[in-house]
Amino acid sequence: MPHTIDAFFRPRGIAVVGASRKRGTLAAEVFHNLVTFGYDGPVFPVNPSAPVVQSVCAYPRVSDIPLPVDLAVIVVPKRFVSDAVDDCLKKGVKGIVIVSAGFAETGPEGKALQDELVRRVRAGGARLIGPNCLGVLSTDDTYRINTTFAAVSPKRGSVSFSSQSGALGVAILDYAQLLGIGIRHFVSVGNKADVSGNDLLEYWEEDAGTEVILLYLESFGNPRRFMELARRISRKKPIVMVKSGRTESGARAASSHTGSLSGLDAAVDAVSAQAGVIRTNRIEGLFDVAMLLANQPIPAGRRVAILTNAGGPAIMASDACDSQGLEVPRLSRRTERALRTFLPMEASVGNPVDMIASANAEHYERATRLLLEDENVDALIVLFVPPIVVDAPGVARAIRRGAEGATKPVLTSFLGTHGVPEALSSLRQNNFPSYAFPESAARALSRVVRYGEWLRQPAGRFPTFDDLDAAAARAVLAGESGRAADRWLSDAEVRTVLAAYGISSPKTLFASSPEGASEAAASIGFPVALKLASETITHKTDVGGVLLDLDSPEEVAEGYRTIAERLGAAGFARDFRGVIVQEMLTRGVETFIGVTQDPKFGPLVAFGMGGVNIEVWGDVVFRVCPLSDVDADQMIDGIRGKKLLDGYRGGPKADRPALVDALLRVSCLMRDFPEIEELDINPLYALEPGQGVVAVDARIRAGSRASTGTTGKATP
Amino acid sequence: MPHTIDAFFRPRGIAVVGASRKRGTLAAEVFHNLVTFGYDGPVFPVNPSAPVVQSVCAYPRVSDIPLPVDLAVIVVPKRFVSDAVDDCLKKGVKGIVIVSAGFAETGPEGKALQDELVRRVRAGGARLIGPNCLGVLSTDDTYRINTTFAAVSPKRGSVSFSSQSGALGVAILDYAQLLGIGIRHFVSVGNKADVSGNDLLEYWEEDAGTEVILLYLESFGNPRRFMELARRISRKKPIVMVKSGRTESGARAASSHTGSLSGLDAAVDAVSAQAGVIRTNRIEGLFDVAMLLANQPIPAGRRVAILTNAGGPAIMASDACDSQGLEVPRLSRRTERALRTFLPMEASVGNPVDMIASANAEHYERATRLLLEDENVDALIVLFVPPIVVDAPGVARAIRRGAEGATKPVLTSFLGTHGVPEALSSLRQNNFPSYAFPESAARALSRVVRYGEWLRQPAGRFPTFDDLDAAAARAVLAGESGRAADRWLSDAEVRTVLAAYGISSPKTLFASSPEGASEAAASIGFPVALKLASETITHKTDVGGVLLDLDSPEEVAEGYRTIAERLGAAGFARDFRGVIVQEMLTRGVETFIGVTQDPKFGPLVAFGMGGVNIEVWGDVVFRVCPLSDVDADQMIDGIRGKKLLDGYRGGPKADRPALVDALLRVSCLMRDFPEIEELDINPLYALEPGQGVVAVDARIRAGSRASTGTTGKATP
Repeated sequence: MPHTIDAFFRPRGIAVVGASRKRGTLAAEVFHNLVTFGYDGPVFPVNPSAPVVQSVCAYPRVSDIPLPVDLAVIVVPKRFVSDAVDDCLKKGVKGIVIVSAGFAETGPEGKALQDELVRRVRAGGARLIGPNCLGVLSTDDTYRINTTFAAVSPKRGSVSFSSQSGALGVAILDYAQLLGIGIRHFVSVGNKADVSGNDLLEYWEEDAGTEVILLYLESFGNPRRFMELARRISRKKPIVMVKSGRTESGARAASSHTGSLSGLDAAVDAVSAQAGVIRTNRIEGLFDVAMLLANQPIPAGRRVAILTNAGGPAIMASDACDSQGLEVPRLSRRTERALRTFLPMEASVGNPVDMIASANAEHYERATRLLLEDENVDALIVLFVPPIVVDAPGVARAIRRGAEGATKPVLTSFLGTHGVPEALSSLRQNNFPSYAFPESAARALSRVVRYGEWLRQPAGRFPTFDDLDAAAARAVLAGESGRAADRWLSDAEVRTVLAAYGISSPKTLFASSPEGASEAAASIGFPVALKLASETITHKTDVGGVLLDLDSPEEVAEGYRTIAERLGAAGFARDFRGVIVQEMLTRGVETFIGVTQDPKFGPLVAFGMGGVNIEVWGDVVFRVCPLSDVDADQMIDGIRGKKLLDGYRGGPKADRPALVDALLRVSCLMRDFPEIEELDINPLYALEPGQGVVAVDARIRAGSRASTGTTGKATP
Repeated sequence: MPHTIDAFFRPRGIAVVGASRKRGTLAAEVFHNLVTFGYDGPVFPVNPSAPVVQSVCAYPRVSDIPLPVDLAVIVVPKRFVSDAVDDCLKKGVKGIVIVSAGFAETGPEGKALQDELVRRVRAGGARLIGPNCLGVLSTDDTYRINTTFAAVSPKRGSVSFSSQSGALGVAILDYAQLLGIGIRHFVSVGNKADVSGNDLLEYWEEDAGTEVILLYLESFGNPRRFMELARRISRKKPIVMVKSGRTESGARAASSHTGSLSGLDAAVDAVSAQAGVIRTNRIEGLFDVAMLLANQPIPAGRRVAILTNAGGPAIMASDACDSQGLEVPRLSRRTERALRTFLPMEASVGNPVDMIASANAEHYERATRLLLEDENVDALIVLFVPPIVVDAPGVARAIRRGAEGATKPVLTSFLGTHGVPEALSSLRQNNFPSYAFPESAARALSRVVRYGEWLRQPAGRFPTFDDLDAAAARAVLAGESGRAADRWLSDAEVRTVLAAYGISSPKTLFASSPEGASEAAASIGFPVALKLASETITHKTDVGGVLLDLDSPEEVAEGYRTIAERLGAAGFARDFRGVIVQEMLTRGVETFIGVTQDPKFGPLVAFGMGGVNIEVWGDVVFRVCPLSDVDADQMIDGIRGKKLLDGYRGGPKADRPALVDALLRVSCLMRDFPEIEELDINPLYALEPGQGVVAVDARIRAGSRASTGTTGKATP
C-alpha cells in the first residue's frame, strides 16, 4: 500500500489554487516554479477570474479539472482557504499544501480554524502540509516538484531535509547548492498541523532515494514518538539535526538539583545520544556533516591519515583531529617505505604525510592510494594549498583516481575553498566533500566517527526486575489524594519508595528529643549522622541541619540541641519536629542520581558524582527514560569524575554494577510512577565492589500527573 | 628616524633577483606580479643571461642598477643566494626577501648557512625576510607591492596580517577577498631568520594605516617579548591570532600535577588572556572577528539587540548569544512603543524584534535606527531571510541608512550568504560585516565584547613585598650545588622556602618513632595529621601515607605503625624514615596553587580548588609570570569552583585577599628563583576572611636552570 505522503512526492497532477498572472506575487511564483521545474505531469492553475495563467489554461475550481489531481497547493488569502480545501477534497486530492498563513501561529482563534481544517482533511482521506509553509521540493527523476516561491534548483542527490522554518529552509537550500550537496526531498513543514517531522522520518525511512535525513527543528510535536522513530531509523540512515530554541527550558523551576542542572536542553542532547542522532549546534555544521555522509562511507574507527603539500594546514588538521577525539596514528612501516620510493627526501612520511610544495598530481594519486590501503588508517583527510606549478583541478582528479575502489572515507580541503567549486568539479562528480579549512573537515569527520561507533554498539536491552514492590511504593504515592497535589515526601516515605524498588538506605531512626537521639544512635551503632527531619526545608545543609560522624551518646544529644538552635537562629523554629539518626557510612564513593520531568521528553535521569560536586562542576550526564543497560553504562562512562569510581589516589573503589543496577531501577520507578515530578539521591554511596549502593540522602517530589504516556496519535 | 622595516613597505626601487622570462616559474610570476600590481616606483629584473625580462630591461647584477634599490626579492636556487645577498648589500639594499628554500627548515647545515646570511645582512645594515617565504604584499596607495607568486589582489583596507605559513597565507588572502575584508599589509615570514612576527607587531603598532593585526603562528620565536609587545599594543589595536601546533607541549612529563594539567597549550591561552590578544581556534574564526573589528566600533557592553524578518534565525541568534555569554536584554519601553507605530500587529517588538516576512526596506531602516538608539543595547545583529517581495540589496541599503551615525557595532546575516556578495555591495561600502548564519555573528561579537572588557579593565600592577627573605630561600635552593641537579626538596625545605616568601605552613614536627609522634602531637595540640616523610614518594596518599584527624596520643602512635606497615606492604619499607606530625586545620577551603615551567613562556602559575578536584575536573586557570594584581584576581574569578570560596551550602568562606596575596608571592618567588622547575601547594587552605591561607601540603622541584631571562635580542 502506498504511503499517504506519496501524494506529495508522486502526484499524478498538481493544482495551484490562487495561481496568479502577476509575476512577483507569491502565488504567481509558486505556479511559475512548479511549471518550470521539470515535473512530468500536468500543473493546473486554479483561478476563478482568469481563463489563462502564465500561458496555461486555468480552471475556476479544482473540482473543475478534468484530469486526476493528487496534490494541491493553496496560495489564497486566509479567508478563502477553507472553501479551497473543501473543493480539493471534493476532487479527491490526496495531498494539500497550504502556503497561506494566519492560523495557529496567530493565536487561539487561528488554532481553532486550523484544527477544523485538519479534521476535514483527515475525514476526507487526505494529508495536509502546513499551513504557513513553503511546501515541498523533490528532485526525483519523474516527479520533479517545487512548490516553494524560491527559484532554487538544487543538485539531485540523496539528502532529504525537513525544515520548520520555511524561509530559512530556502536560504539553506541555496547554501547547500553552493556546497554541491545533492538534495532529494525538501519539506517546509510550517505549523505541522498534520504532516510532521516524525511522519517524514517514517516516509524517508522507506524511501530508497533518501540516504541522509536532515532536520531543522524549533520544537518537537511528539517528542517520544520522535525518540522511538529516531532510535530505529538511525540504524538504517543517519539523521542529522539542528534544534534551535535551545534556551526554551531555561524557565524551569531552579529549586531542584536536577532541574537546575538540566538547564538548556539536556533532554535533546540525551535523546540524540540515545537515538544515534547527530546533533550539530550550527547550520554550517549540519551541512559539513551532510556533505560527508551523503558522499562517503562511515569510517570503521577513529584513526585518521593526513596528506598535505604544506606543513601549516597539516598542523591545523592534527590539532583539530586531536581536540575532536580523533587519532592521527603512525602509519605502517610498509606505507612509509612505499611513500619514500617516490617522495623527495625533504618530505615527511610520518603522519601527517607532508609531500612539500613540489608535490604534483601523481604524488597525490599514489599517496592517496597508499594511505587508504594502510591498515592503521580508517579515514583520510587530503589537504592542498595551491603552489604555483600545480593546478588544483589536476590534483582533484588525481585524488579521485587514488581513492578509486576505496572503502574508507576521503575528505579534502583545498584551502580557502568552501564546498566544491566548478574548477574542482571532478571532486563533485566523485563525491569528495571539500572544506574551506581542515578544522571543519576534522569536526565533521569526528561526528560521523561517533555515529559509526553508535551503530556498532549493542542496541541495548531494557531489563526488568522481579523484586520490584510496586504496591508498597503506590501505598505511599497514592496517599497523595488527600494531600496537596504537589509535595515533598517525608524522609521515611522516600526510604519506603526506594526500598520498594530495591534501593537501600542506611539504618535510620527518628528522634524528637536529645535523649531519644542518643538511644537511637546506640541501637544503630556509632558513628552516626544526625539530620534535620523536615518536609519543608529541602536543602538541609544550608541551614546547618546535618551533623556527621558523631561518636558517642553525648555528642549525639549535643548535636540534637545544636540543630534545634541553628534552626531557631535561622527563623525556622516552627518547622522543627526532630531529627533522624542515621548509620554513618565511612567508606564509599559519593555519587548522585536525579530525575526531573522534562516537559517534552518525560523523565530525564541524571548521573554524576555526589555532594556539591555536581552543582559546582556541572559534571553530569543525562538520559531520557526508559534507560537501557547500554544507556546506564554510558552515563557512568560519560562523566569526567569517572576516575573517582576506580579508587583514585588511594580513595575507595565503587561497585559499578550496583550503580548500573540502581540507574535501571530508578528508570523502572519512573516508568511505573509518572506522578513523581522530581527525585534526587544525593549522595548515593557506592560501596566497595560487591557491596552495593546506599541512598544516604534522597528527596522525592510527587505531583498530580496521572500518566505521561502518549495518547495515540497526538498532534505530532 | 624611519623604521628599518620601511625598506619592505616604502622602497624607492625593487629588484627581483632571478627574474625569469619563462612564465609559470616561481621567479617569473614574482616579477610579473610586482610589475602588474601597481607599484609607483621602478621594478628591475636581475638576470645575468637575459637582457630583457618580460619586456623590461634586465641587469646582470643588482649592483649594476643605476637607480636606488631599497628592496630586493631573491628567487634563485639556494647555491646562488649567498652571492646575491652580498651583491644586494654592495648596492645598499635595505630590505631583502629570500624566497628560496633549503635553509634552517632542512636541518643543522641549512641552519648554519642561514645564520651566516643573517650575520652578513645585519652587518650590512639591512633586514631580511625569510628565507623560505613569499615576502610581502602591501595595498598602500603609493607603495602597492606584491612579492608573492600569487596573483591575488585583495581589497585595500586596514588589516595587516603576518603568516608563518606562506602558502596557507595566500589561500587565506583569497578567502579574505571572498569575505570583502580589506588588507593593508601581508607578510609571509618564512623561517623568521631576521624579521619576526614581533618586529612586525612593533612596526604595525606605529603604522597609521593598520587598525587590526592578524597573526597566523606555528611557533613563538621570542615568546616573552611577544607577551610584552602584545600587552602594550593590544591597548591601541586589536591583535587576533590563530596559533596552530596546539598539541606540541603534550610530550611534557606527566608526573606532576601542574605539568599534566597544563597539557595542550595553556600558556598560549594564558598569554592571550593577559595580553588582550583575541585567540581563535579556527581560521574561519580569525576572519569572522577581523571582519567585525576592521569595520565596526567595539561595543561598550554585552547587550545585543536582534532584528529579523523570520523567527527561526532569530532563535538561532538568541541561542548563540546566550551560549557565548552575551545578553539579549529587554528593550526600553520607548523603543517598543516606537516599533509598534509602524510594524504590523503580528510582529514581535520584544528582543529579538521579529518584523515577520512582510518587513520591507523601510521597516529595516527605521527599526535599525531605533534599536541603535536604545540605551539597553550595546550591539545590533540584523538578520534577513529573503522572502519573495523584498530585495536583499534594498534591505542592505536600508540597514546602511538606519545605522548612519551610530556608534554601536552592527553585524548582519543575509542567511546563507557568507561575506559580502556583489549584490550587497552597499554593505561592503559601509563596512557592515555579514555572516552566512547568525551563530558566526554572535561568536565573533562575543570575542570582540570580551576584548572591549579587557580594554576597560585596569592595566594591572605588579606589587612588590618588603617582607620577602630571598636569602633564606636561596640558602635552601643554593644547597643544590652539591646535590643532584634535579630533585624534590624535603618537606622542611619546602616550608622554609614558602615561609621566606610569606606563605605559612601548619605547625609541623618530625618524628621517627610511634612514641616520638605521640609526643610531637601533644606539643602541637590535637587533632593532628600524620604524613609520611619521604623525598622519593611524591603522591603520599597513593601509598596510604596520610592519616588525618588523629585525636589522641594512642591514635597517633597507632597511626605511625599503620603508615610503616602500609609502606612495607607497598614494597617501600626502605624508603621509610619517619613521619611528620602536623597541626590539623579543621575549617577552611581547599585550594591549589601550582607552577610549572613552560618551555616557551617560563613560569606558568595555576590556580584551582584543591585536593583531587583539580585533577578530576580540570577546573584550573593558568597565567604566565609575572602576575599582576588583576591577573591574580582573574585567576580566582576564572574557576568554576569559585562559588566554593563564598561559603557554598553552609561550607566555610575563604579569605580571598589572602589568596590573591599568595598568588602574587608565588609569582615573586618564581621571578627570583628560576631554578624552581615545579611547585605545587595542594591543598592551600584558605581560612575564614581575615585569617589568611596555610600551605598544608606542598612540593617543590629544583633544577639546574640558572636564569630564564631573555638575553637581549635572541632569535625572535
